[in-house]
Amino acid sequence: MDKPYVIGIDMGGTNTACGIVDARGEVLRRGAIQTQKYTEADQYINELHKALMPLIEEVGGIDKIKGIGMGAPNGNYYTGNVEFAPNLPWKGVIPFAGMLHAKFGVPAALTNDANAAAIGEMTYGAARGMKDFIMITLGTGVGSGIVVNGQLVYGHDGFAGELGHTTIVRNNGRQCGCGKTGCLETYTSATGVARTAREMLDIKKEDSLLRNIPVESITSKDVYEAAIKEDAIAKEIFEYTGRMLGEAFADFVAFSAPQAIVIFGGLSKAGDLIMNPIREHMEKNLLPIWKGKIQLLFSALNEADAAILGASALAWELKN
Amino acid sequence: MDKPYVIGIDMGGTNTACGIVDARGEVLRRGAIQTQKYTEADQYINELHKALMPLIEEVGGIDKIKGIGMGAPNGNYYTGNVEFAPNLPWKGVIPFAGMLHAKFGVPAALTNDANAAAIGEMTYGAARGMKDFIMITLGTGVGSGIVVNGQLVYGHDGFAGELGHTTIVRNNGRQCGCGKTGCLETYTSATGVARTAREMLDIKKEDSLLRNIPVESITSKDVYEAAIKEDAIAKEIFEYTGRMLGEAFADFVAFSAPQAIVIFGGLSKAGDLIMNPIREHMEKNLLPIWKGKIQLLFSALNEADAAILGASALAWELKN
Repeated sequence: MDKPYVIGIDMGGTNTACGIVDARGEVLRRGAIQTQKYTEADQYINELHKALMPLIEEVGGIDKIKGIGMGAPNGNYYTGNVEFAPNLPWKGVIPFAGMLHAKFGVPAALTNDANAAAIGEMTYGAARGMKDFIMITLGTGVGSGIVVNGQLVYGHDGFAGELGHTTIVRNNGRQCGCGKTGCLETYTSATGVARTAREMLDIKKEDSLLRNIPVESITSKDVYEAAIKEDAIAKEIFEYTGRMLGEAFADFVAFSAPQAIVIFGGLSKAGDLIMNPIREHMEKNLLPIWKGKIQLLFSALNEADAAILGASALAWELKN
Repeated sequence: MDKPYVIGIDMGGTNTACGIVDARGEVLRRGAIQTQKYTEADQYINELHKALMPLIEEVGGIDKIKGIGMGAPNGNYYTGNVEFAPNLPWKGVIPFAGMLHAKFGVPAALTNDANAAAIGEMTYGAARGMKDFIMITLGTGVGSGIVVNGQLVYGHDGFAGELGHTTIVRNNGRQCGCGKTGCLETYTSATGVARTAREMLDIKKEDSLLRNIPVESITSKDVYEAAIKEDAIAKEIFEYTGRMLGEAFADFVAFSAPQAIVIFGGLSKAGDLIMNPIREHMEKNLLPIWKGKIQLLFSALNEADAAILGASALAWELKN
């Protein structure tokens, strides 16, 4: 291959990880810079360039690079801009794809983190060969990337796939950061699981390992650790979380009839503890034509590399 | 144009309407046969052929026909089959697209009614020029056709777009014919509106024009006629129905970020009575990025021709 490598850049609120990736999804070189440190977007791009150029030289120079893909909060694939991202140091609309192209002299594209994860999964992971699937990322928030007919669904404005903000509890639902109530994210993100824990410990009388932890500092990891020790309340928290996800997934299936739903992120480490209730409640709520037919999968990407891989996968689709 | 016309066939449970359509969406010739009359699918196709051939001759013969599109209950675009349709006289899997091709000697495709409506709207109607929109058909049931990036969403199995069977009431929802409870269809189909009327008349004390009608025979048309006479309960029924639709639409927007949602079918004749509450509750439930930005439209197709036009539009996309 003339240009055998792509660059993936995962912009997070605190750190930015980057890497050079080959066609098989191997990360050949890795780098990182601090996102927060640069008050100007230009400085940030300069610093990225400084971090990446030595790595690029090590693999044979910029001529070996097909393109750059970036996953970024509020990244819009259509415009190549990051638009009004609340957790980044730069306000307003920043044309990062154009800035990367100008700085490195190779094509660049960006999208949001969950979309990048979906493309990564399709290119290198559990969704290889699938034309229709949905990626759900369960982290601090709940993100999603939807693939229909082999293409990512961007919608008319580039913002499609906000499944974390579909309503799972219609009345008296939890307040969401987005301003709505009852969003899936408020129940099934890591934060949502911690909220459920606090609610259950308050309502229930039973003893629980979770009662040994100050209630305001309980995390989803604490719940996991208690659940694998067979703690009844902790197991019920996963059951509750999985029910919310399963019910929501059944509606997602009615929309795009995906071959699979792939879950990714911290919560997916809970394995069967979360997957069993998801499966049970999804199946219960599916139309008969889909019962037993929709695969539920965990991401097959190594978590440390997944974000870089997802971003890098965007670059394979770029035209020169 | 070498082949300036297409044939559209709308297979209903009782009747089948067909027509010859030009590129501007004008129905040049019309025909109809009774669906129920033919116990064998072969007989049905023979009869369709008999009804259509004289019309085809009138427009210049079969050489002028680019292809045939059929909208049919449980029609699967991928396979060209009608699969296990409960309201048709033929059981099991019937390969209608293949049978039409063999009988007429021109390419043929089929899909379900709501998908055909969406393609019709994109080709000739309110969604012309749109690449991302959702069609919602409000009839005896609630159907949907979803267009993403200019293409109909069929899903991995051809059955995508069952938005009438997403769950709008999660607990103690109404029983749906599909076996689930709380489906959007149970509240917002014509039958759903009649169910709401019976419930409200039962719960409420106020006088209403609807009380003059035997409660079991109230239809959505009766509710409409009472509402335009300012009947308070009838207006509340539309408000309730519109709220359900508006809340559901907000979640659909989070999925595919359509430019517009187009509504079609009997209930859409209620005009502002249904559209105003839909808009109000959709807007309330949209993420801030979409507020005020998603168009709500009525179908622009003449109702009598819409089903034929939708089916015919499929045929423009056929390859010879």
